[in-house]
Amino acid sequence: MTISAAVLIQLEAQAIELPSWAFGNSGTRFKVFGTPGTPRTIEEKVCDAAQVNHYTGLAPKVALHIPWDKVDDYAALRTFTADQGLVLGTVNSNTFQDDAYKFGSLTHTDAATRQKAIDHHFECIEIMHQTGSNDLKIWLADGTNYPGQGDIRGRQDRLAESLAAIYARLGDAHRLVLEYKFFEPAFYHTDVPDWGTSYAQVAALGDKASVCLDTGHHAPGTNIEFIVAQLLRLGKLGSFDFNSRFYADDDLIVGAADPFQLFRILYEVVRGGGYGPDSTVAFMLDQCHNVEDKIPGQIRSVLNVQEMTARALLVDRDALTLAQDAGDVLGANGILMDAFYTDVRPGLAAWREDRGLAGDPMSAYAASGYQARIAAERVGGSQAGWGA
Amino acid sequence: MTISAAVLIQLEAQAIELPSWAFGNSGTRFKVFGTPGTPRTIEEKVCDAAQVNHYTGLAPKVALHIPWDKVDDYAALRTFTADQGLVLGTVNSNTFQDDAYKFGSLTHTDAATRQKAIDHHFECIEIMHQTGSNDLKIWLADGTNYPGQGDIRGRQDRLAESLAAIYARLGDAHRLVLEYKFFEPAFYHTDVPDWGTSYAQVAALGDKASVCLDTGHHAPGTNIEFIVAQLLRLGKLGSFDFNSRFYADDDLIVGAADPFQLFRILYEVVRGGGYGPDSTVAFMLDQCHNVEDKIPGQIRSVLNVQEMTARALLVDRDALTLAQDAGDVLGANGILMDAFYTDVRPGLAAWREDRGLAGDPMSAYAASGYQARIAAERVGGSQAGWGA
Amino acid sequence: MTISAAVLIQLEAQAIELPSWAFGNSGTRFKVFGTPGTPRTIEEKVCDAAQVNHYTGLAPKVALHIPWDKVDDYAALRTFTADQGLVLGTVNSNTFQDDAYKFGSLTHTDAATRQKAIDHHFECIEIMHQTGSNDLKIWLADGTNYPGQGDIRGRQDRLAESLAAIYARLGDAHRLVLEYKFFEPAFYHTDVPDWGTSYAQVAALGDKASVCLDTGHHAPGTNIEFIVAQLLRLGKLGSFDFNSRFYADDDLIVGAADPFQLFRILYEVVRGGGYGPDSTVAFMLDQCHNVEDKIPGQIRSVLNVQEMTARALLVDRDALTLAQDAGDVLGANGILMDAFYTDVRPGLAAWREDRGLAGDPMSAYAASGYQARIAAERVGGSQAGWGA
Amino acid sequence: MTISAAVLIQLEAQAIELPSWAFGNSGTRFKVFGTPGTPRTIEEKVCDAAQVNHYTGLAPKVALHIPWDKVDDYAALRTFTADQGLVLGTVNSNTFQDDAYKFGSLTHTDAATRQKAIDHHFECIEIMHQTGSNDLKIWLADGTNYPGQGDIRGRQDRLAESLAAIYARLGDAHRLVLEYKFFEPAFYHTDVPDWGTSYAQVAALGDKASVCLDTGHHAPGTNIEFIVAQLLRLGKLGSFDFNSRFYADDDLIVGAADPFQLFRILYEVVRGGGYGPDSTVAFMLDQCHNVEDKIPGQIRSVLNVQEMTARALLVDRDALTLAQDAGDVLGANGILMDAFYTDVRPGLAAWREDRGLAGDPMSAYAASGYQARIAAERVGGSQAGWGA
Repeated sequence: MTISAAVLIQLEAQAIELPSWAFGNSGTRFKVFGTPGTPRTIEEKVCDAAQVNHYTGLAPKVALHIPWDKVDDYAALRTFTADQGLVLGTVNSNTFQDDAYKFGSLTHTDAATRQKAIDHHFECIEIMHQTGSNDLKIWLADGTNYPGQGDIRGRQDRLAESLAAIYARLGDAHRLVLEYKFFEPAFYHTDVPDWGTSYAQVAALGDKASVCLDTGHHAPGTNIEFIVAQLLRLGKLGSFDFNSRFYADDDLIVGAADPFQLFRILYEVVRGGGYGPDSTVAFMLDQCHNVEDKIPGQIRSVLNVQEMTARALLVDRDALTLAQDAGDVLGANGILMDAFYTDVRPGLAAWREDRGLAGDPMSAYAASGYQARIAAERVGGSQAGWGA
Repeated sequence: MTISAAVLIQLEAQAIELPSWAFGNSGTRFKVFGTPGTPRTIEEKVCDAAQVNHYTGLAPKVALHIPWDKVDDYAALRTFTADQGLVLGTVNSNTFQDDAYKFGSLTHTDAATRQKAIDHHFECIEIMHQTGSNDLKIWLADGTNYPGQGDIRGRQDRLAESLAAIYARLGDAHRLVLEYKFFEPAFYHTDVPDWGTSYAQVAALGDKASVCLDTGHHAPGTNIEFIVAQLLRLGKLGSFDFNSRFYADDDLIVGAADPFQLFRILYEVVRGGGYGPDSTVAFMLDQCHNVEDKIPGQIRSVLNVQEMTARALLVDRDALTLAQDAGDVLGANGILMDAFYTDVRPGLAAWREDRGLAGDPMSAYAASGYQARIAAERVGGSQAGWGA
Repeated sequence: MTISAAVLIQLEAQAIELPSWAFGNSGTRFKVFGTPGTPRTIEEKVCDAAQVNHYTGLAPKVALHIPWDKVDDYAALRTFTADQGLVLGTVNSNTFQDDAYKFGSLTHTDAATRQKAIDHHFECIEIMHQTGSNDLKIWLADGTNYPGQGDIRGRQDRLAESLAAIYARLGDAHRLVLEYKFFEPAFYHTDVPDWGTSYAQVAALGDKASVCLDTGHHAPGTNIEFIVAQLLRLGKLGSFDFNSRFYADDDLIVGAADPFQLFRILYEVVRGGGYGPDSTVAFMLDQCHNVEDKIPGQIRSVLNVQEMTARALLVDRDALTLAQDAGDVLGANGILMDAFYTDVRPGLAAWREDRGLAGDPMSAYAASGYQARIAAERVGGSQAGWGA
Repeated sequence: MTISAAVLIQLEAQAIELPSWAFGNSGTRFKVFGTPGTPRTIEEKVCDAAQVNHYTGLAPKVALHIPWDKVDDYAALRTFTADQGLVLGTVNSNTFQDDAYKFGSLTHTDAATRQKAIDHHFECIEIMHQTGSNDLKIWLADGTNYPGQGDIRGRQDRLAESLAAIYARLGDAHRLVLEYKFFEPAFYHTDVPDWGTSYAQVAALGDKASVCLDTGHHAPGTNIEFIVAQLLRLGKLGSFDFNSRFYADDDLIVGAADPFQLFRILYEVVRGGGYGPDSTVAFMLDQCHNVEDKIPGQIRSVLNVQEMTARALLVDRDALTLAQDAGDVLGANGILMDAFYTDVRPGLAAWREDRGLAGDPMSAYAASGYQARIAAERVGGSQAGWGA
């Protein structure tokens, strides 16, 4: 099978949002390895993100994390970003690093602490107005480590109240996306641990609230593409945080651990109307490049998403439906696998070259000298990281 | 700590529903071991269930499984059951053993097959009218074994339609409880795999539909008590299928694998208003006694639920709230653990004896000679089982 | 990348052993679906296996399961099998279906029961002499369902004694391979639950004993290719039972659930010297075709193994070593992925056609009319299954 | 059941080793919360550890972590520790925080890097001579994040060589204990991921090498007590790192997540001869008090171990054997559960008071004013932590 023109046209519109923090240092509780050339500022992160887009044409947006990316003048940042050919995307809040949040933020028993966390989201919404961002993403680290430490039920009720206050402050064009996560940093209970909880909470808020699905945030064995199909059916799939994992929230490069799973996820996206001009689903990366180079790590990631999207679009859906209706298990499976096993790389390289992009973005970046230049230039200052 | 009078009063009302199939043979795909004395009929199952209630005072109801427990005259069965001191409870449908359902029942692509499955539920509802049962429980085995075999999204839509048809047929006093299960017998995708799916489906149906939580039907590591708290908060926890597991849906005796988990579940039940005269949550067992004796297995099970309920009721909730609000992690956890580590068995034995029951139901049953009697009497015929 | 001549030459020798039971009915504890044409006898199973080999050239051996495949005259069976162009392979013992083994076989506390299980293996060894089989495979279902039910330590000691007795009876050309399994049918503890246990037991026996690795028998998240590498390093990888799984021991078609994992496994096989004329590792399938057609299911399976072996052989190992030594994470990973993403199917089709085989074995079998013929002919009698 | 005198006598000898790092700050990759009073030096850690022993009588040893606990004069540290009534225990090496170890330490492809890691262990052995420590514990973080990044097999071979070099340097009274861990900080493969690997490596070294079992380092669902029984049987259980977990390596207080599991583990310890004067098994804690107070967290931990040891010793082993041999599943399980459900706390409180210790160590410590004193005194300097 080769990539048809129809598929290539559908790929034109693909746009993947890069997380600013992917260009900074990250690691584990055991060690964060620094690397020469790591950005010190959000502007340097944006420049690195621009490289990813330059070589792939796939990554026109950069997501911000507040306070890691706080600046005095967001209008200036917006202009600077535009000058690099990018726009600013989702604003991510942070309610897990202030000492006040040791026992919770939006769910805290103390009203003043909850208000502090709500106010932080008001600040994020204000920033969104200035950056032109549409999406406010809330990943809530709230939870407990020991049975009895918190009142699970009461925390859920307080979460609903806090979210309602934030929701009421959204601008007309804004959305709130609520991410769920199985565990970590809390080790007994997490206040938004699964899609059901996120769905129940955003359904209570209204049309501007939806679910963010991070592909690494599930229990072992969870069928993620089922959740994709279900959330699309319920009209509540707001965005993806793409990455991959073998064990827990490993935050590896998307598609690295289980490429077939990524294929199945993207197939359900396509099947359910989540891809294309009529869809409002946002496609973001959320990864950590602990041991690999960061910029090429992001290039590899967006290419993985593109290649798997191409394979998902290649599925012969009419033939698939016929086989499914006939109870032809092996036939139906074979139709899916045929698309998965198709080598789309040559076709996509040709397609890139047609557009004046590098056929092989990884090699082109490596040959560009950018990495050596930033390693030489970015000396002194404090390398960006999570500040954990 | 000893069991207070207040707790003992709350325990008076405890009623646990026994599954008729627990008294028949069960096993794995590798082997079903038969045992002397296994019932051949639903009447013999009811007699065995009556033994459990006789020695514990905790188990006044027996759930039916259709078609395993089909009879010609349900009114007669109802009378027979009443004569044994029991009532008939939940009616469980079966959409996984007819050859027609190989590729699905309520979700099947073929309308006639879906109608066949719907009609089966109509039959179950008709039986409920005759048996006086209130709850129709649907555990849906539908799913697929291979990616592509079925259209996940389309199946979910068809499920919604089928459930709506069944729901519309319910009597005024009836409820529909929809069980979810992580996997098995389907090994790639299951059509109702998690509480979120069950919740989304029953929320669309109406007030008479709610979720059935089987404690063995979750992904590894899932925090089940969180789901209990959430479903109670959403007003959609219909019933429990109690059992325990180390690995998958092992269907072991409730409390056997992780007694502390059972305690935490029951604590959230109590905390969330799911226990007591004002609650409509049904407490059922759903277990397989593959290698242990069946009647004592059920006695052990209801005692486990009673003992853990007592411990859950013992938690000093006022002190717990104070510790939680103070951020006293070890103090709060200690209050919970204090109740868990309390040996409630002597107090419950005394309480039983006060009511004319055996202090030690396990020994009393063993000494009764019932097991030897049924082993001698129940010769010939076909032992009840799952007919897999 | 295309398949080089060097790789094609290495593929010449590939031989995958088919399990006789894959052609019979199988299912779950909930239901075993029968299908028209299912074999009633071992001879019919052999004929079906011959079809798989006929269309693929990859499957010249059939493994037996005793007692499911017991016959009066094994010499005749051997001849019959040879007439179909196949040979008889591994003999699998069964210690999980006799009522005597309810609480254990080789590990049982009762010496007579242990001897019964040992004697069964003596019988298997005798059969091996007659069938010309070399490998005795022991998958031990022994275990317990409840803490305290058995003495874990004592059972392990008795297992060692029983295995020693069996080992002593092996013929000169015989091997004993000991399979491990995480859980099922035992749900609390299993007597050979992991590779470490199997390794410790076979290391104590001697050179003719080694480990059987079933790809579906591990805890969630286990890195199976690591175990492959380790067992090859220790000289104790005797054989594979290939299949795949999303959840537990799902016994799906090999490569169906996680094709990339199969690739990584086969890469470590190649890397560690487990593939090729100097290797003694046996490659077997052990699958259940619960809902899909059995013969094409087996054809699909051996093709999956062949295709992944081709990809594993395609890895540029010299370049990989250079990248690994240089700490080039993305480069090294990219070399591996390049082989994985290569579409080897056209090359293998051409290779098959060169040898007079069907380019597309699935279509060729479907077009052959064999399935319709056996469905018509195999009427009456009792379809083969597990007899659970 | 009450605690018999025989059990109390066996409890006399219990000695649990405390990790120095438990008294410093720890956290997740997202945040490390500091607390007033956190030690700045190893001497302050020793003082805190002495509090744990003071109130419980159970914790006479402190384990060191090099380089976190490096001092100029180990003889002085040894004297200081003795003055606090403690001795220095296991020396833990660190091969995961030096930039040189980004791609491995004992397994690195570069010989100089391996030698650097070996030399670090030589330094640890030298420290052991000075501190009087017997055990060198190696937890190896080595591994890779992406398939292909490293050569799994070659790394295992290099590990064997490096360990042999370290082993050869041990003193006569020294032991090497090799810890295994399922994952983290490596997210694709870990070089010592399971007990089988640790066993194979230490078996090749000799009698002075054995396995360290950390209770949080296993795949989901792993039967840890089986591994305990197996390692004791093989004579290779060197030590425990006690903690507990709901998800991954959560490092929660031992017994907090699954008290029944801790009971089963300690029962197999007792059953297999791992407890008491003739055993060489070392019992250590390895926990992180991310959100709870550290000193009471350690007090709670050693009490949990003591209480569960008491319950394990209470098991009526003769009766258990009889029930097991009779195939009395419920009876055998009931004997185990009877011990587990026994409330040993009053008996242990009385026993403590008989020895001049506090009946309730948690309350006694809280009332002592120590926490307020160190909070007031330990101002300035740099709080101890992992330095990640």
